[in-house]
Amino acid sequence: MSDGYDVVILGGGSGGYACALRSAQLGLTVALIEKDKVGGTCLHRGCIPTKALLHAGEVADSARHSEDFGIKATFEGVDMPGVNKYKDDVVAKLYKGLQGLIKSAKIDYIEGAGTLVAPNTVEVAGRRITGKNVVLATGSYSKTIPGLDLDGEKVLASEHALNLQKVPTSAIVLGGGVIGVEFASAWKSLGADVTIVEALPRLVAAEDPDISKQVERTFRKRGIGFKVGKPFEKLEKTATGVKVTIAGGETLEAEILLVAVGRGPSTANIGYEAQGITMDRGFVLTDERLKTNVAGVYAVGDIVPGLQLAHRGFQQGIFVAEDIAGLNPPVIDESGIPRVTYSDPEVASMGLNEDKAKEQYGSDKIETYNYNLGGNGKSQILKTQGFIKLVRVTDGPVVGIHMVGARVGELIGEAQLIYNWEAYPAEVAQLVHGHPTQNEALGEAFLALAGKPLHAHA
Amino acid sequence: MSDGYDVVILGGGSGGYACALRSAQLGLTVALIEKDKVGGTCLHRGCIPTKALLHAGEVADSARHSEDFGIKATFEGVDMPGVNKYKDDVVAKLYKGLQGLIKSAKIDYIEGAGTLVAPNTVEVAGRRITGKNVVLATGSYSKTIPGLDLDGEKVLASEHALNLQKVPTSAIVLGGGVIGVEFASAWKSLGADVTIVEALPRLVAAEDPDISKQVERTFRKRGIGFKVGKPFEKLEKTATGVKVTIAGGETLEAEILLVAVGRGPSTANIGYEAQGITMDRGFVLTDERLKTNVAGVYAVGDIVPGLQLAHRGFQQGIFVAEDIAGLNPPVIDESGIPRVTYSDPEVASMGLNEDKAKEQYGSDKIETYNYNLGGNGKSQILKTQGFIKLVRVTDGPVVGIHMVGARVGELIGEAQLIYNWEAYPAEVAQLVHGHPTQNEALGEAFLALAGKPLHAHA
Repeated sequence: MSDGYDVVILGGGSGGYACALRSAQLGLTVALIEKDKVGGTCLHRGCIPTKALLHAGEVADSARHSEDFGIKATFEGVDMPGVNKYKDDVVAKLYKGLQGLIKSAKIDYIEGAGTLVAPNTVEVAGRRITGKNVVLATGSYSKTIPGLDLDGEKVLASEHALNLQKVPTSAIVLGGGVIGVEFASAWKSLGADVTIVEALPRLVAAEDPDISKQVERTFRKRGIGFKVGKPFEKLEKTATGVKVTIAGGETLEAEILLVAVGRGPSTANIGYEAQGITMDRGFVLTDERLKTNVAGVYAVGDIVPGLQLAHRGFQQGIFVAEDIAGLNPPVIDESGIPRVTYSDPEVASMGLNEDKAKEQYGSDKIETYNYNLGGNGKSQILKTQGFIKLVRVTDGPVVGIHMVGARVGELIGEAQLIYNWEAYPAEVAQLVHGHPTQNEALGEAFLALAGKPLHAHA
Repeated sequence: MSDGYDVVILGGGSGGYACALRSAQLGLTVALIEKDKVGGTCLHRGCIPTKALLHAGEVADSARHSEDFGIKATFEGVDMPGVNKYKDDVVAKLYKGLQGLIKSAKIDYIEGAGTLVAPNTVEVAGRRITGKNVVLATGSYSKTIPGLDLDGEKVLASEHALNLQKVPTSAIVLGGGVIGVEFASAWKSLGADVTIVEALPRLVAAEDPDISKQVERTFRKRGIGFKVGKPFEKLEKTATGVKVTIAGGETLEAEILLVAVGRGPSTANIGYEAQGITMDRGFVLTDERLKTNVAGVYAVGDIVPGLQLAHRGFQQGIFVAEDIAGLNPPVIDESGIPRVTYSDPEVASMGLNEDKAKEQYGSDKIETYNYNLGGNGKSQILKTQGFIKLVRVTDGPVVGIHMVGARVGELIGEAQLIYNWEAYPAEVAQLVHGHPTQNEALGEAFLALAGKPLHAHA
């Protein structure tokens, strides 16, 4: 069948392929259209390769600090082609696995750039593919700001930054959000001299302010420079690199500039406006069931306003497939989606930070508790610092969980169940956590919040 | 007040001090009697120092294999006094914190060896301390077997093994349970040639057989020798170390022998039998509310038959305090206690393994699903192998979660909530996990079990 699919999906990234796989499982006929490689940004230019880079950095730091653990090892440097091979091998293996899944799932995979030419039709290289339902999943691109042309050599977006053939001697990172701090952290570990420039008053400004403080404290210790509350003003290219002027007139020089000011929706010139899809600054607007204003057209992933995260794409893709199949899945609660920043220290959070919780419930209705990892045996063994901050409604459930420290990203698994299942502190405190783990720190925080601290002062 | 306490606790290990802290929080007057150091085996000779040793091993292995990640580092050896200083510093810091908690909690801390001289009285160095309730919490010791005298030099128990001043050239580890595989793993990482001897037919025999297979596979790759189904027969000391004969007549030689055949209850000669406490092979028997047969006398921790884990002690200690205070806490479900083995690979499990689930529910009522970490991005980044095995009752909840691979011990936090809250696969599958994390593998396993695999074949 080349025409008349149940579902035609434009874009084979996280949202698109998840939708395709789930649709096929549900017995729907599916066409998945991708102009580059299935897996999209996340697998090829985003989540996966950056985490490989960060892990290479962790290995470097482990060698550097081995003496603190009684291990004699000498860190001699970074073999960047070796790092890239490791990174590319991980991507290649996952890519192969994903291709296998798509192939065995009875999905018609169509390679090429698609354009929406009718509400039920995508055209690819002159071929028209029609479907009862069309799912827009065209993803996002690295944004820049006026006056900053990405040249891929001295002025980089994240996709360029993932393919450097040597570690930069020095780098300026424009943007102190998730992408910016992850690259800053990785490059510092790999030996670069890094300075972050952020217009907002703190790093990881979407997180709870206490978390930002701890990230800044640790970055300071690690020798990662940062200028917060300092908007970018001007870029000059020099013989050896770049010279950046920031608010107040201060100038910074480095070999390269990474522009990490966010990701914009990839929606231009592919027929969305022409087909009457309601959009806002390039994003596709949908209702809570991810339907656009045009009947039969859904949108998922980074083109839909909200958190730009691969797993949100997975969830939305699955949701849309189930919606099309008539399973009537429950609406996705965006605040129930876990957030992890994989820098050193890692940051992981669920739900509302303290300020937002107070806005929503009233200042006098919110209680918080900070459990310092200083009391957590496994964190001491890892020699990491940080804390777990819980935000709860008085006599009500926990509405925010905020964590910072080495490896805390993995604790989000438990945190997301607590948050999404609206557990009361006493319900978590009733259960004992494994000793000595880091997740025990979550247990301790809940014990304290339930009024029965164990390894903590009340 | 020197007499007539609400609660008199004999033993300041995990169970005892948790009971003391919770009792004091609840306004009870408390005496805590300890002959050595508060924190007991876990803090000073068990959980904490072994995990520090294992982490030093992880640092060594990371340096050894740095090239696989593109990092140039040379592993030069182990500075065992340095490892010991790191380990001892971690213990000292946690010990100091614990002492501070005890001090600020209005607990009468009494140093000395106590003997139960009446159902409501413990005698310490001639002083009689009486209480309305007495809690026995005297912990456990490293067992050995006939013909094996622990000399602390060539034939070691775990407490000796934690204080070696150099890495042994070679070691035989008698016992392939948790303690045995943890030491074998750590020593191999630190450079020793290790062979495990186990009478049972597999390593970590308390775990699901699939888990044992994976541990054995990884140990084989790591060059850790093991002889399973081979009971110990004979020990001879040689000029350079030990010579061990195992079933079938095979002999093994090494510099040292670690005896890791389990821990026995420390209950001899402290008045328990004399006061009429019902015992079984040294263990103190209790009802499900941890009451012994003698009115007013409770028991907690390793002296009570069951899992010998520090966090079980915490939970039991807290339970008894709340029971004494009249809070009527719900009975502890022992199968809801998380189990972690911190070897490389780590093992973590909740609930029933496949065989036990089939015994309990019937073979035709049990389904399992194995999610291979090969499909998990973060695990690929860590270059680890392993899987998550779920055991569920058909159309019912998950009754067993079994995990193996690097760092999976931290995933037990989420697993324990799923298990204890009796979640159905679809309830977990509804939520999206953070990408790319290792806990995402738990999410994938639950998606598959719920009939909607994402990054997995059905």
